[in-house]
Amino acid sequence: MFFDVAASVDGFIAPEGMDLAHANDPDYKQWMSQWSKLQAWVFHQKFFRENLKLGEGGETGRDNSMLEETFRRTGVSILGKRMFDGGERFWPEEAPFHTPVYVVTHIVRKPWARPGGTTFYFVNDGIESALVQARKAAGRKDIRIGGGANVIQQYLRAGLVDEFTIHYSPVFFGEGERLFSGIGKDVTVRIKRAVASKDVTHVTFEVEK
Amino acid sequence: MFFDVAASVDGFIAPEGMDLAHANDPDYKQWMSQWSKLQAWVFHQKFFRENLKLGEGGETGRDNSMLEETFRRTGVSILGKRMFDGGERFWPEEAPFHTPVYVVTHIVRKPWARPGGTTFYFVNDGIESALVQARKAAGRKDIRIGGGANVIQQYLRAGLVDEFTIHYSPVFFGEGERLFSGIGKDVTVRIKRAVASKDVTHVTFEVEK
Repeated sequence: MFFDVAASVDGFIAPEGMDLAHANDPDYKQWMSQWSKLQAWVFHQKFFRENLKLGEGGETGRDNSMLEETFRRTGVSILGKRMFDGGERFWPEEAPFHTPVYVVTHIVRKPWARPGGTTFYFVNDGIESALVQARKAAGRKDIRIGGGANVIQQYLRAGLVDEFTIHYSPVFFGEGERLFSGIGKDVTVRIKRAVASKDVTHVTFEVEK
Repeated sequence: MFFDVAASVDGFIAPEGMDLAHANDPDYKQWMSQWSKLQAWVFHQKFFRENLKLGEGGETGRDNSMLEETFRRTGVSILGKRMFDGGERFWPEEAPFHTPVYVVTHIVRKPWARPGGTTFYFVNDGIESALVQARKAAGRKDIRIGGGANVIQQYLRAGLVDEFTIHYSPVFFGEGERLFSGIGKDVTVRIKRAVASKDVTHVTFEVEK
């Protein structure tokens, strides 16, 4: 199981103001502009553009390969409630997963199938139960924790994450959703791979077991 | 003016417990072991070992060159009070700067000359005054903000930093001295250079003016 996220220089994965209450107010705290800076490198990539049907063209270098590899290895995603709520508002009708997705939430809800092969399942009994269900559905592929930070931190603390990639983007948020909070020193890691691109630095860490 | 620091995966430049009160108690919160993990790559480098007289040998690759270049470009360092207090306790008699060092502090104290060319000057009227004095002393060389985080953040917020390098080390601290806190989105940066080494990822950011 892994996660793969873009982080600001000061360690946030979402800017302040990027929430359901301000979904229609992109100028609030400049959240849209800040988030666009965080994700700028992604929006230039051919694979991402095709997957979200954003249009033709795009870069086809190493950054693009990384996005495509991450997508291909993912058999299932796990999301937290807030991440899902935000996505439900923002994803296109054909959600970008094209796999089963397990949402860890207290909300009881029937599975929700979307065009293109994404089905959301709502898990009410915690992260370990979500993982068991995800394993069964993933087959020989890997499981990606899609975020947000809270569910990532829960899995990391529980010792259930094998590796993770951080894409360090050159932007300061000041406030927002912090990627790591309260991760104890008992979580030990080593660098598996680091790739320097022009507008982002990708670092993959392996968690020592 | 620049700064150059090692940071944990979760964004700290010093672990909790690494303070004057626990200087003789390295097992407290395992601060010594945690700090050693943060700095592991540095202690292996030939230049660092020679500069601190830690002994013969050491690595001579790209990490070593980076340390040596950072040292050679530095004509003056600026430190905050806590950083100086910790250093006064831990540096060898021949302090590792070998240049003038300006300490931003409320403590009134005469300049303190050490063997090997380091002289500490104590500045009581704030960061801009320290910078003016540092510029005069630096000549054609650059000025390094040696830390801690508080003085780094003050200079960054004041728009006085030209670039900075973060050495991302594969360790979680959980708690400690956070490198970036309250840096607003008005501070905009771009990646100048990123270098992937085996045990650390070096990223240099340029501050846009």
